Amino acid sequence: MIQIFVTGGTFDKEYNLLNGELFFKDTHLREMMEVGRSNIPFDIKTLMMVDSLDMTIDDHEIIAHNCMRSKFDDIVITHGTDRMVATASYLAKQKTLKEKTIVLFGAMIPYAFGSSSDGFFNLGSAIAFAQVLKPGVYIAMNGCYFNWNEVRKNTKTGFFEGV
Amino acid sequence: MIQIFVTGGTFDKEYNLLNGELFFKDTHLREMMEVGRSNIPFDIKTLMMVDSLDMTIDDHEIIAHNCMRSKFDDIVITHGTDRMVATASYLAKQKTLKEKTIVLFGAMIPYAFGSSSDGFFNLGSAIAFAQVLKPGVYIAMNGCYFNWNEVRKNTKTGFFEGV
Amino acid sequence: MIQIFVTGGTFDKEYNLLNGELFFKDTHLREMMEVGRSNIPFDIKTLMMVDSLDMTIDDHEIIAHNCMRSKFDDIVITHGTDRMVATASYLAKQKTLKEKTIVLFGAMIPYAFGSSSDGFFNLGSAIAFAQVLKPGVYIAMNGCYFNWNEVRKNTKTGFFEGV
Amino acid sequence: MIQIFVTGGTFDKEYNLLNGELFFKDTHLREMMEVGRSNIPFDIKTLMMVDSLDMTIDDHEIIAHNCMRSKFDDIVITHGTDRMVATASYLAKQKTLKEKTIVLFGAMIPYAFGSSSDGFFNLGSAIAFAQVLKPGVYIAMNGCYFNWNEVRKNTKTGFFEGV
Repeated sequence: MIQIFVTGGTFDKEYNLLNGELFFKDTHLREMMEVGRSNIPFDIKTLMMVDSLDMTIDDHEIIAHNCMRSKFDDIVITHGTDRMVATASYLAKQKTLKEKTIVLFGAMIPYAFGSSSDGFFNLGSAIAFAQVLKPGVYIAMNGCYFNWNEVRKNTKTGFFEGV
Repeated sequence: MIQIFVTGGTFDKEYNLLNGELFFKDTHLREMMEVGRSNIPFDIKTLMMVDSLDMTIDDHEIIAHNCMRSKFDDIVITHGTDRMVATASYLAKQKTLKEKTIVLFGAMIPYAFGSSSDGFFNLGSAIAFAQVLKPGVYIAMNGCYFNWNEVRKNTKTGFFEGV
Repeated sequence: MIQIFVTGGTFDKEYNLLNGELFFKDTHLREMMEVGRSNIPFDIKTLMMVDSLDMTIDDHEIIAHNCMRSKFDDIVITHGTDRMVATASYLAKQKTLKEKTIVLFGAMIPYAFGSSSDGFFNLGSAIAFAQVLKPGVYIAMNGCYFNWNEVRKNTKTGFFEGV
Repeated sequence: MIQIFVTGGTFDKEYNLLNGELFFKDTHLREMMEVGRSNIPFDIKTLMMVDSLDMTIDDHEIIAHNCMRSKFDDIVITHGTDRMVATASYLAKQKTLKEKTIVLFGAMIPYAFGSSSDGFFNLGSAIAFAQVLKPGVYIAMNGCYFNWNEVRKNTKTGFFEGV
């Protein structure tokens, strides 16, 4: 049983053909779980659809609150990559979440951009890590997982790396 | 560090436009690891390119032999879905592999068939499970993992399910 | 104003993940016209969903009858490639169709197989040829158009070529 | 025999995963002609890789010069949509091009963005129109063709429409 929370990020961005900018419509998670033929019972909730650079403390609270209220202990959260570590850090400090396995993940290329996107691969690994890792807050990107306090995004390469 | 072995299966099939049949050319694994932006050191070897229904005891021996010889302890193996459990069973009985974490996976729709394929999702989860599960032989399909002796493919639905 | 008739063929085939065979569900034409952002008024009718090798004289009559009854003079017809020339030949002999521009086209790889398919390109060229060619029956494949009686499918290469 | 000139535009844009902006690398035309199984002899030349909003009079001259020097009379040109009409207008005024059929086309969504792009459809129709239309300068978008002086891009809808 997996709880999936959607917060936005590049993962779920769409291309606006009128102005060439990226924007949010609906999440692709349901479709992706179906194409992946995922057979785990899951619940999806869209908490917000924002760039992580635009996230506020209110957004962090909403995410923490929903993690706490979820009846599931295994939680994956889509998230923009730029501030993923900041949100992970916030969640790790919530005592009410000590028994949950929370995995944040995202994509460097929108799922809507087809076969060039890393999103579907990252979803597969996030779902897997959430089932197996012991309680804690993790980031799953680039086929790896990291403890929330042992990772940073290398903005020059776009890879997450241990620190 | 991950060892990737390729054995064929639907995962790596191509469509022959002249006769409408599926066939094998090269594996897509390297391209997939790149698109997935996987940042784990890995080694890929193509052991064979066959339908699992055509696998012989010789093929099983080749797979076991290469698992044993690999210098890596975390191994993922692409495999046709029809006989995936049979190969897992064979590998589980090899005493020489007791310290390896071996994850077999595949796809119900070829990766070459684009956005309808479950292959990229399954690769993401297999890579993740291989890093975290303790030594043993597993099957990773449909977002789940199964011990080799607790799973079967439901040929009516195409899902792997616990037994 | 364009009339689109759907008859099946590889163009609209799907992959059956349970038995590995190709089958027909619904046509992808409406979705394709939308993705192509086609701005020509058009009407789509599915006349049948068959392999052209399975087409009977009754099927030919249905196609001819619907071409005649269509209120549009520009008609494109999706069709299996193996017998496309045979159907074109039948249509060319119907006196009632002398004032119509009829363009048969198809695909060597199903549209459902993603970025490897020639279907979307062929649709674009068929729609274009139908608007510009003078009345007659044509085949539009491989970026070219052919009069119905000056073309054959080369079964060794999968290309249509002039004769 | 078709001459293909590449000038850039949304058609050939790529997504930069580090800053989220679009940029140019190489053209996708060769790959597209292969996937489309186009069987017409053709020659591709990349004249420039620019947004049409950044085009200068020098760029117009380069395009005109290359159209004139091409040994082929049927020419298709990929082009950004914003200034496509301006370039068409420039080319139409060159007396040296009176015997050429020149078709400008492009895409509202980059080909690199997969199954959501209109680029492959537009290529199919541009190739078709170039073979059949009489000498002149045309724009082929949205499945339609327009004389250079009877069309504008509706920037509110992203469709080209007759004027």
